[in-house]
Amino acid sequence: MGKLVTVGEAGEAVVLERLLAALAVPASVSGVEAPLLGPGDDAAVVVAPDARVVATTDLLVEGRDFRTDWSSGADVGAKAVAQNLADVAAMGAVPTGLLLTVGAPSDTPLAWLEDLGRGVAAACSVWSTSVIGGDLSGASELLVSITALGDLQGRAPVCRSGARPGDVLALAGSVGRSAAGLALLLAGGPELAEEVAPELLAAHRRPVPPVGAGPAAAAAGATAMLDVSDGLGVDGARLAAASRVHLDVDADWEDQHVLDLLVAARRLGGDDDPWGYGLVRSWVRGGGEDHALLATFPAGVAARGLPEPFVRIGEVLPVRSGWPAVTVNGDDEVVGGWDVYA
Amino acid sequence: MGKLVTVGEAGEAVVLERLLAALAVPASVSGVEAPLLGPGDDAAVVVAPDARVVATTDLLVEGRDFRTDWSSGADVGAKAVAQNLADVAAMGAVPTGLLLTVGAPSDTPLAWLEDLGRGVAAACSVWSTSVIGGDLSGASELLVSITALGDLQGRAPVCRSGARPGDVLALAGSVGRSAAGLALLLAGGPELAEEVAPELLAAHRRPVPPVGAGPAAAAAGATAMLDVSDGLGVDGARLAAASRVHLDVDADWEDQHVLDLLVAARRLGGDDDPWGYGLVRSWVRGGGEDHALLATFPAGVAARGLPEPFVRIGEVLPVRSGWPAVTVNGDDEVVGGWDVYA
Repeated sequence: MGKLVTVGEAGEAVVLERLLAALAVPASVSGVEAPLLGPGDDAAVVVAPDARVVATTDLLVEGRDFRTDWSSGADVGAKAVAQNLADVAAMGAVPTGLLLTVGAPSDTPLAWLEDLGRGVAAACSVWSTSVIGGDLSGASELLVSITALGDLQGRAPVCRSGARPGDVLALAGSVGRSAAGLALLLAGGPELAEEVAPELLAAHRRPVPPVGAGPAAAAAGATAMLDVSDGLGVDGARLAAASRVHLDVDADWEDQHVLDLLVAARRLGGDDDPWGYGLVRSWVRGGGEDHALLATFPAGVAARGLPEPFVRIGEVLPVRSGWPAVTVNGDDEVVGGWDVYA
Repeated sequence: MGKLVTVGEAGEAVVLERLLAALAVPASVSGVEAPLLGPGDDAAVVVAPDARVVATTDLLVEGRDFRTDWSSGADVGAKAVAQNLADVAAMGAVPTGLLLTVGAPSDTPLAWLEDLGRGVAAACSVWSTSVIGGDLSGASELLVSITALGDLQGRAPVCRSGARPGDVLALAGSVGRSAAGLALLLAGGPELAEEVAPELLAAHRRPVPPVGAGPAAAAAGATAMLDVSDGLGVDGARLAAASRVHLDVDADWEDQHVLDLLVAARRLGGDDDPWGYGLVRSWVRGGGEDHALLATFPAGVAARGLPEPFVRIGEVLPVRSGWPAVTVNGDDEVVGGWDVYA
C-alpha cells in the first residue's frame, strides 16, 4: 500500500480505512467518552443527556476558505473543528460529537487526507470530543464539512436575542489576529508571514476559540452570545438586530487589543498608513475567523466578575434610530463582513 | 428583486432569505413540531427525548450524484432528504431534524436554489420533519449536503452486526428501479426515459424510501438492518461481514422483483441480451439509490408476520469459508457497487 499516492489510486475502501486510522485517538489519551455507536453503521448514536441536542454545520471549500499552499491538511482539519465547536459553545453547550464530510478530487494525495484526519483528531482531543461518523465523496475541489453536536447540560440555550440595555458587552478570545495573518499571506505568502509574525500566521491557520468559555458564560447568566466568525462589526450587528439594542465598544479596549497586531500592520501599511493604524482597526473591527465569543451579561454579573476569559469591551444601549448598530465610543461606525458568493 | 437571476447578483443575505422562505412549511400543513430553536442563531436545538441522538450525513455533488439537465433543483433536494432519512430509519430511529448545506457557483440561478428548497420542504413534509439549520457557501460546482438527526424512542439501535444464522432476510422498498431509470437517462436522456418508463425515471430522480419501516422493524425485533444505497450485493455483503454470516437470496423473489424493470431492460438489452434479463439482474443486484431497507428478523418474528412493508427475500446462513458473502439460491455471486473516486 506504500505506493498509493492519490485517493483515486487507493479507492474508497482504502481511503476510508486510512482516514479512520488518522482520526482515531486512543481513549486513554483523549479522555473522551466513546460514542454509543461510531463510524461504520448507517448512522452514529451519541449521548444527549439533556434530552435536547444542539446542532450546527460549516463547509470549508478549497480556494475560498483555505489554500493548500498556505495551510496543511492538518491545519484545515483543525480549523474546521474549531469553527464548528465555537458555534456549539456560542449556544452555551458542550460538544458531544462531530460528523466529518470530505470531498476530494481523485488526484488528491492520500497523505493530504490522512494529514487532515490527524488535524481533526488533534483538535478533537483538545476539546474532548470525537468524530462519530461522516461521508466521503469525489469532488472537483477539496471540501471539508463538519457537523457538530452539543449538550446544554440542563441550561437554556444562549440566543442572540437576549441582550438588554444596561448589560455589559464582553469578549472571550481575540479578534483580528486571523485577518492579520491572512493579510500577511496575501502580501507575501508563508515566507513573509513566518518572518513578520508567526503567531498571527498560526492564528489564521489554526484558530483556537475559547470553547470552554461558552458553557461558562451560560452558567454565569449571559443574556446573549454568538461567535465572531465574520467580524466584530457584522456579528455585533447581528446580535444587536436580534436583541433590538445598540452596542457600543470602548475605544480603550480597542487600543489595547490592537497592540500585538501592529507588527504586521506596520509592515503592510504603505505610504497612506505608515504606522498601520488604519489596517489594525480594519482587522479588529472587520476580521473574522478567530471565533471569539461575543456575549452580553447583566451588569450585576459583571460587577461580581465575568467568567474567564471574558473581558468587558463595551456596553449595551437602547436602539437609536438612524444610528449604526455597533459603534466605538458612541462614534465611528464599525463595519466589515464577508459575502460567500462575492 | 425580480431581476436578480444568479446567487452572485443576489448576494448571501438575499439567497438565505429566499432559501428559508422556500424551506418554510406551515406547521398546520406539515404537522411537524417546530424545533426548539431553528435557523438564525449559531446552532439549532432539537428535542432528543430518548437522551441519545442518531446522526448521519450525505453529500451530493453535481456531475457525480446528479445532473441539472436530468434533475430539477426540487428533485435534488428531495433525493438528498430521502437518502439521509433512510440512514436514520435503518437504525430504527424516527427523524427529528435536518441541517442543509448548499454550495453554489456565483452564476447559479437563484431560482434553482429556491426550487431545491421547495424539494427539501416537500420531502420533509412527507416524513414529518424540518430543516433546523445549515450553511451556505460558494463553490465551483453545486453541492448539497444534509445531516439528519433522529430519535430511537427508547429502543436499541439496529446495527449491521446482529444477524444470526436462521434469521429471515427481508426487504422493505425496491431495488434496481433507480438504476434502471439512470440507465435510460444514460442511453437517451429524459426523452427516452419519459417515453419508456416514467415511473423508473421518477424513482431515479426522487426515490421514496420506506422511512417508517425502520422504526417498525426495530419495534418488531429486527436483528440487523441497513439501507441499500450501493446495491443489494455490496450492502448485503456489508451486513454479512459485520454479522459474520452468509446471506442467501431466493431466486423466486428476484424473478418477481424484476418484472417491472423488464420494459426498460428490453429497450436497452442489445443483441447480446435481447430480452434484457442480464441487465435486469444487474440492476436488482447492483443498483443502489432506491434506499430500500434490508433487515434480518428472527424466524419466530417472521412466522408471526413481518412488519409492513417488509417481504421475505431469503435467509441468513452460517459463514462458508471461500464463498461469496451474498448468493442467490446458494449459487451465483451477487456483486456490484460504487467507488466514489472512480
